[in-house]
Amino acid sequence: MGAYDDLIAYERETQALAQVMGRLSWDQETVMPKGAAHQRAEEMGALESVLHRRRTDPRVGEWLEAVDETALDHAARAQLRHILRGYIRAMRLPETLSSQIARVTSRAQGIWAEARAADDVAHFLPTLAEVVRLKREEAAALAQGGDPYDALLDDYEPGATGAGIAAMFDRMRPRLVELRERILGSDRHPAPLSGRFGAEGQMTVAREVASHFGYDWRHGRLDHSVHPFTSGSGTDVRITTRVDEGDPLNCLYSTLHEVGHGAYEQGIDPAYLLSPLGEGVSMGVHESQSRIYENQLGRSRAFCGWLHARLAEVFGQSGAADADAFYAAVNRVHSGYIRTEADEVHYNLHIMLRFDLERELIAGRLEVADLEEAWNERFQSDFGVAVDKPSNGVLQDVHWSVGLFGYFPTYTLGNVYAGCLYTALCAAVPSLDDDLARGHAETATAWLRENVQRHGGLYEPAEVIQRACGFDPHEGPLLDYLEAKFGALYRL
Amino acid sequence: MGAYDDLIAYERETQALAQVMGRLSWDQETVMPKGAAHQRAEEMGALESVLHRRRTDPRVGEWLEAVDETALDHAARAQLRHILRGYIRAMRLPETLSSQIARVTSRAQGIWAEARAADDVAHFLPTLAEVVRLKREEAAALAQGGDPYDALLDDYEPGATGAGIAAMFDRMRPRLVELRERILGSDRHPAPLSGRFGAEGQMTVAREVASHFGYDWRHGRLDHSVHPFTSGSGTDVRITTRVDEGDPLNCLYSTLHEVGHGAYEQGIDPAYLLSPLGEGVSMGVHESQSRIYENQLGRSRAFCGWLHARLAEVFGQSGAADADAFYAAVNRVHSGYIRTEADEVHYNLHIMLRFDLERELIAGRLEVADLEEAWNERFQSDFGVAVDKPSNGVLQDVHWSVGLFGYFPTYTLGNVYAGCLYTALCAAVPSLDDDLARGHAETATAWLRENVQRHGGLYEPAEVIQRACGFDPHEGPLLDYLEAKFGALYRL
Repeated sequence: MGAYDDLIAYERETQALAQVMGRLSWDQETVMPKGAAHQRAEEMGALESVLHRRRTDPRVGEWLEAVDETALDHAARAQLRHILRGYIRAMRLPETLSSQIARVTSRAQGIWAEARAADDVAHFLPTLAEVVRLKREEAAALAQGGDPYDALLDDYEPGATGAGIAAMFDRMRPRLVELRERILGSDRHPAPLSGRFGAEGQMTVAREVASHFGYDWRHGRLDHSVHPFTSGSGTDVRITTRVDEGDPLNCLYSTLHEVGHGAYEQGIDPAYLLSPLGEGVSMGVHESQSRIYENQLGRSRAFCGWLHARLAEVFGQSGAADADAFYAAVNRVHSGYIRTEADEVHYNLHIMLRFDLERELIAGRLEVADLEEAWNERFQSDFGVAVDKPSNGVLQDVHWSVGLFGYFPTYTLGNVYAGCLYTALCAAVPSLDDDLARGHAETATAWLRENVQRHGGLYEPAEVIQRACGFDPHEGPLLDYLEAKFGALYRL
Repeated sequence: MGAYDDLIAYERETQALAQVMGRLSWDQETVMPKGAAHQRAEEMGALESVLHRRRTDPRVGEWLEAVDETALDHAARAQLRHILRGYIRAMRLPETLSSQIARVTSRAQGIWAEARAADDVAHFLPTLAEVVRLKREEAAALAQGGDPYDALLDDYEPGATGAGIAAMFDRMRPRLVELRERILGSDRHPAPLSGRFGAEGQMTVAREVASHFGYDWRHGRLDHSVHPFTSGSGTDVRITTRVDEGDPLNCLYSTLHEVGHGAYEQGIDPAYLLSPLGEGVSMGVHESQSRIYENQLGRSRAFCGWLHARLAEVFGQSGAADADAFYAAVNRVHSGYIRTEADEVHYNLHIMLRFDLERELIAGRLEVADLEEAWNERFQSDFGVAVDKPSNGVLQDVHWSVGLFGYFPTYTLGNVYAGCLYTALCAAVPSLDDDLARGHAETATAWLRENVQRHGGLYEPAEVIQRACGFDPHEGPLLDYLEAKFGALYRL
C-alpha cells in the first residue's frame, strides 16, 4: 500500500493547491480591487505553473505503476481511475502547446469582449481561428488516433462521445421544435413581471430560498458577480448571483441554479475531502443538480405559488396579478436570441446548434470564416427568426474564446439527467409538491444528497444517474416533462 | 547578466505565490465561511510547502554565486541583498525545526486564546515554554555564534540590534515615566466620548478619512475583521477595521493606522512589483507610516477639529462638548493595562516591558515559569498599578504564542521613526496644519511617498529614515513632540 498512500498524499496537496486557485478566481470576480488585474494574472500564472509541474511529475507515473490494484477497495480504485485519467491527459499535452493555449485564450477573451460590444465579427475571427487551430492540435494530441472532439469532451464528461450525444440530440430536436411551434402558435401570451424590486429585498429572498433548498451557510456564502457562478469544493463552496431591479427572477433563479451546484459540492462525502473523488464527477452531472433546483423544483407550480406570496410580502407586489399569472410569467416561452436567457423549451435548441457547429469546427469540416453564416442559417431554421446582430448570434458566448470546446453539450446532458432524476425523485418523495408549496425543498436535497451528491467522483457520470434512478439515463423523461408542463400551461 | 535575470525571474514567481498566501490570510479573516477552517489550514500548509521548497532551492544559491555584482546598479544590488539574506536565513533553519515551530505555534495560539479567556496562566505556560525552547533553538541556528536575540530581530528589522534598542529605550524610559506622572498628577481629567454611533455612519466616515489620507481604492478595499490588519503588496493592498458602536475612535483610528500601512505598500515604485524591493523594508519603517497617519496627523488638534465637525454632521453629535473637548478625548492619557488600547504616552512603556522580558527569555536569563512575576513587577514599577488579572497582563498579546520574538520593539522603533519623519514633514509641508484642519492629508502622503514609501526595500531601514529626514533617526523628536503636545493639553 506504500505507493497508493504516497500517491494519495501527493494528490491531496495538489487538490489543496487547486482549491487555492479556485479562491483566487472567486476573489477576482467578487471582491478584487479593479487595479489588481495584472498582478492577479501573474499570481495565478505562478500557481498554475506549480500545479502543472505537480500534475506531470514523473513520480505520479511511478506510483501509478507501483500500485497493487487488487489490494484496493472500490473507492480506492475510483481514486486511481481519476488520477490516471488526469495524468494521461497532462502527459499527452506538450507544455509548449498548453502555455500557448493559455496565452492565446487569455488574449482572445478580451478581443471577444470588444467584438461583442462593437458587434464586429471580423475583429474576433482571426483570433478565434488561432484558438480553433490550437484546440484541434490539442484534441489530436489527446486523442492519439481516436476521435478528436471526444478527446476534448472527455475532460468535461468522461465516458460520453460526440456520436452518442449527436444521436440523442437528433431524437430530441424534432420534439422540441414541434413543442416550441405549438406553444408559439397558441393563443396564450403570458405577460412578463412588471414593477421595480429593490436590490436588498431580492437578496433577502435569495438567501431565504437558498436556505430552504438546503444550502449550508457554515460552508458557503452568497455574493454578487457579473456572471453568477459556484466556486470551491469540500467545506468552502461559495455561490454568487446578480441583481436586476426590473426583474427579480434573474436574481432568484440564478441563485437557485448556483444553489444546485453548491449543494452538490457541499453534499459530497467528507471522507473524499481534497481527494480526486471530492468534486462533482462531471459537468453534466453538475448541471443536473443546478437544473433540477432551478427548473423542475424552482419553476414548479407549487414553488411559484409560495414565491408569488413571498414577493408580495417583501415588495408589496409580485409583479403578476395572481399565482397562476406569476407561474406563467416564470415559465414564459419566447423565441429569444440569447442562450442564457432561454426558457426550458428553447434552451436545448441553443445547445444543439453550438454542439453541431463546434464538432464540425474541431473535425475540420467547418472553418471559422464560415462560422457566422452557419450559425445564422441554423438559428433561422430552429428558431424561426433571423439573427439581427452578431452579439445576439455567434458572438454571444464566451466559451469558444477561452477554448471551451466540448463543454456546451454538458448543459443539455445536465437537463436530460435532471429529467431522469426528477422522475425518480417524485416517486421517492411523495410530499415533494406539498414541501415546495411551503417554499421548502430540503426533502429533495436529502434525496439528491443520498442518491447523487454524496458519491462525488465515486461512479462514472452515467452510472451515478443510473444508480439513482434505477434506469439508464435517456432523454424521454425530460421531453415528457416539458410536453406535460408546457402543454398544460399553454393549453395545447 | 544571465544568473541575475534567472534569479529575479524565479524570485518573481516566489513573490507572486507569497502574495497568494497573503490573500488566503485576508480571506480567512474577513469572508471565509466558519466551517472551512480545517480545509483552509491544509490549503495554506500546501502552499507553505511550495514556498519553503522554493526558498531553499539550491539553484538560488548557485545563481547568487554566479552573479557578477560589479555589473549591477544600486537597485539590483539591493535586490540581491534581500535575496541573499532570505536564502541564508532559510538555509540555516533545519526543516524539521521550522515545521516543529509551525506545528507548536499553531497549537499554542489556540491554547493561549483559551488561557486568556479563562484567565488561567498555568494552562498556557507549558506550551509557551515549548515555544520558547524552539525559538531559542531557532535563534541559535540563525545566529551562528552571534547574538541569538539579534538573529530573531533581524527578520523584522534588518540592521537593528538588541543592544542598540536597549540603549535607546533606556534613554526614553525616564522621560516617558516622568511625563506620564506629571499628566496623571495634573488637575485635568478629560472625559471620553459619550453616546452611540451607528456602524454604517462610522464606515462612511472611515472611508472618507481613508480617501482624504490618500488611500487608493483602485488598488485596495476596506473590510471588517476582529483585529484590523493590512494585507498584500503592489496593486492589491487591502485594509480592515472594526466597529464599536460605543466608541467611533476605535474604528476611525484603526482605519487611519491601517491606511498608513496600506499607503506605504501602495506607494512603492511600481518597477519593484513582485520583487524583493516591492514590500515595506522593515516592520519598524512600516509602523512609522501607520503611526504618523494615526497619531501625528490623525490625533493632531487640526484634524480633530475637522473630525469633530464631521461626526456631528453624520451622527448629530461628536460625543464631546466642543472641538477642544473632542481633541482632549482623542488624546486622553490613562494608565490602562492593555497595550493596544494605550495612549501615545503609555504605548512605548508597554513595548519596553515586553522587549526586556523577551530578550531575557531568549538569552536564557529568564524562564517561562518566572515570566508572570517579572511582568507584574515591571508593570507596577512603570505604570504605578498592580496587574489585576493575567488577561490584563502577561496573557494579553498573541505574539509570543505564535513565536513572534523580536517583533515588539519594532512598534516603538516605528514611533521613533514617525517622530523623526514628522519633524521633517512639518518643515517640508508648511500647509500641513491647514490641510488637516480641512480633513485632508494628501500633501503629507505625497511627501511621505516621495521620501519614504516609493523606495520599498531599496535602502536599509535606518537609511531610508536618514535620507528622508536629513539626520540619523533618534528618539529626540518623538519625546519632544510628546512633551510638547501633552504638556499643552494637560497644561503642565
